[in-house]
Amino acid sequence: MTDTFELPDPDRETPRPSGWLSPHEIARVRAAVPLLYVDAVPVRVDDSGDVVAVGLLLRATPEGVMSRALVSGRVMYHERVRDALLRHIEKDLGPVALPQIPSSPQPFTVAEYFPTPGVTPYHDPRQHAVSLAYVVPVSGDCRPQQDSLDLAWLTPEEAVSRPVLGEMNGGQGLLLRQAMAYVGRLP
Amino acid sequence: MTDTFELPDPDRETPRPSGWLSPHEIARVRAAVPLLYVDAVPVRVDDSGDVVAVGLLLRATPEGVMSRALVSGRVMYHERVRDALLRHIEKDLGPVALPQIPSSPQPFTVAEYFPTPGVTPYHDPRQHAVSLAYVVPVSGDCRPQQDSLDLAWLTPEEAVSRPVLGEMNGGQGLLLRQAMAYVGRLP
Amino acid sequence: MTDTFELPDPDRETPRPSGWLSPHEIARVRAAVPLLYVDAVPVRVDDSGDVVAVGLLLRATPEGVMSRALVSGRVMYHERVRDALLRHIEKDLGPVALPQIPSSPQPFTVAEYFPTPGVTPYHDPRQHAVSLAYVVPVSGDCRPQQDSLDLAWLTPEEAVSRPVLGEMNGGQGLLLRQAMAYVGRLP
Amino acid sequence: MTDTFELPDPDRETPRPSGWLSPHEIARVRAAVPLLYVDAVPVRVDDSGDVVAVGLLLRATPEGVMSRALVSGRVMYHERVRDALLRHIEKDLGPVALPQIPSSPQPFTVAEYFPTPGVTPYHDPRQHAVSLAYVVPVSGDCRPQQDSLDLAWLTPEEAVSRPVLGEMNGGQGLLLRQAMAYVGRLP
Repeated sequence: MTDTFELPDPDRETPRPSGWLSPHEIARVRAAVPLLYVDAVPVRVDDSGDVVAVGLLLRATPEGVMSRALVSGRVMYHERVRDALLRHIEKDLGPVALPQIPSSPQPFTVAEYFPTPGVTPYHDPRQHAVSLAYVVPVSGDCRPQQDSLDLAWLTPEEAVSRPVLGEMNGGQGLLLRQAMAYVGRLP
Repeated sequence: MTDTFELPDPDRETPRPSGWLSPHEIARVRAAVPLLYVDAVPVRVDDSGDVVAVGLLLRATPEGVMSRALVSGRVMYHERVRDALLRHIEKDLGPVALPQIPSSPQPFTVAEYFPTPGVTPYHDPRQHAVSLAYVVPVSGDCRPQQDSLDLAWLTPEEAVSRPVLGEMNGGQGLLLRQAMAYVGRLP
Repeated sequence: MTDTFELPDPDRETPRPSGWLSPHEIARVRAAVPLLYVDAVPVRVDDSGDVVAVGLLLRATPEGVMSRALVSGRVMYHERVRDALLRHIEKDLGPVALPQIPSSPQPFTVAEYFPTPGVTPYHDPRQHAVSLAYVVPVSGDCRPQQDSLDLAWLTPEEAVSRPVLGEMNGGQGLLLRQAMAYVGRLP
Repeated sequence: MTDTFELPDPDRETPRPSGWLSPHEIARVRAAVPLLYVDAVPVRVDDSGDVVAVGLLLRATPEGVMSRALVSGRVMYHERVRDALLRHIEKDLGPVALPQIPSSPQPFTVAEYFPTPGVTPYHDPRQHAVSLAYVVPVSGDCRPQQDSLDLAWLTPEEAVSRPVLGEMNGGQGLLLRQAMAYVGRLP
């Protein structure tokens, strides 16, 4: 849950495209329906498709606390899931990450982030978000964008180690472990 | 896409629960974000889990045209996907259908119903709905509820025959064929 | 990898059915090709399909060491995977376990047990076995059969606790954690 | 089911590696246990992962009948499934096909080829083969090898058209349709 809901830039001249909401509308929608998200676990693979590294974003909260995050973001109105996945990966990893978006829409799991903690293992205080989760191999050059300080490539074993998981929020540490279980790399 | 967005009953005394929207709010939300749905393909299975029959709802449109439909409906605010699945199956098949809700949230596919025809094979003129699709064995007594005229149990071969598929709308015929492919029963 | 390769009983009069091999043939085949297995994780679920308990078999090795195991066994010649799954569950949990064999043949993972440790996380010193792994809800009365001392129902949290995992062999502890990741119950 | 069981070359001096069997042994094993196979559906995808073309091999039987086939072959003793997948793709499409082997071992389906027609929709007169089926995007230059006359790239719609399916054997036409259902491209 790392994106910023695509808040519109008040200074831009062009009309607001469909899918962009005013802050007031965002608040209304957030209290009314579950919002559709995608989560992507960026990985490096070898020739046999075996995962050799996992990419985690390093971010700082406004309070200065460091956290690690998966690529995550909202699916907009009239946007296909696979296009949302590509857009968020390019937004977070840069335009030459060369992601291999899955050919099937079947996610490895569905993460249900509830505003109330404890309903599911995932939590987002802002909203009820339901996220389709995918493992996405990237073969290109990845550079952290925007609000990320760094992108770290860790082995599967390092990525699910206790110190790293301790820096992930909202249940993304669990989602990462589920991804590693799915690719057969849970230590 | 068979449900009616749970329009509130104006005569009921109890306060509107979270997740129920006024008609005006529905229109606003529908134009703003993709809505999360579930689709269920009810099936009868034998002892080995092999699908022997598929349940299709028979409905009449306000214009009197007959159509066949899967169990389908919206996931509400603060509702888990598995609870939405159970609720819609009980709403359409009755309280003693005894559905076996999947233990995993992984759907067999994700159907993206767009308001614009042709973007994906699925279409819903009212809204952009993204539906998690599951095959759900039911072992109890199923009785069509509410707005359904009948519930027909067809063999997989009959269910994906041209006449039957011709009575399904919005791409649900494709979704049914995908379900049969998933369970290994596509003729 | 708990089964005993269905060694034929030398005293039985009836001819050996197809799929039953002599000890010499077993040794030959084992050194020649990977053998196809199924692994089943028996679970209890609630009305919403959420896993509430996991069934683990308790066994004693010839040396008297206690171990815990999943339901596991070979797919025989001319036997369907779903029939092998049903047969092994009935063999290990008894004839009235009422398993809900999955309607789809898609396993949640494929566990590759190698005779050489370290090639994959799974290990079987006797052979190269490739196992299709399924989560199987059981709703009936389960009684350990044959060589099992007990069948214990544990919560997902207990089942993947360190002491319990320490009693599982050949990588089945990992397979159990993958199953819990798949059903969204990895703690 | 296109491979030739890797018959050893009698003239080669080097010792037969593990996994290579004599013709007599092949016959014995084939009558004793199900053999593990992989099936790959080679596809071209666009930047969003959407399948735009399917690759089908064109072969001639010894009788001169033309047939179309998926990439298919046996998993050898002590070989990982992902390595078998890579080996068979390189064998059939050449060394620079640049296949994207799936990071997860979860197949989209399991095809059970029985020597007796009608048990399942798949049939192999030589043996009982159980095949893990994967969709594999290839981004490089593909050249048909060995016994293939050609590799044709068809749109998903063309690939599952009646004339093309009519040229596929043993149920591979069904498997192709299941693959298209899985990637959301069944017409």
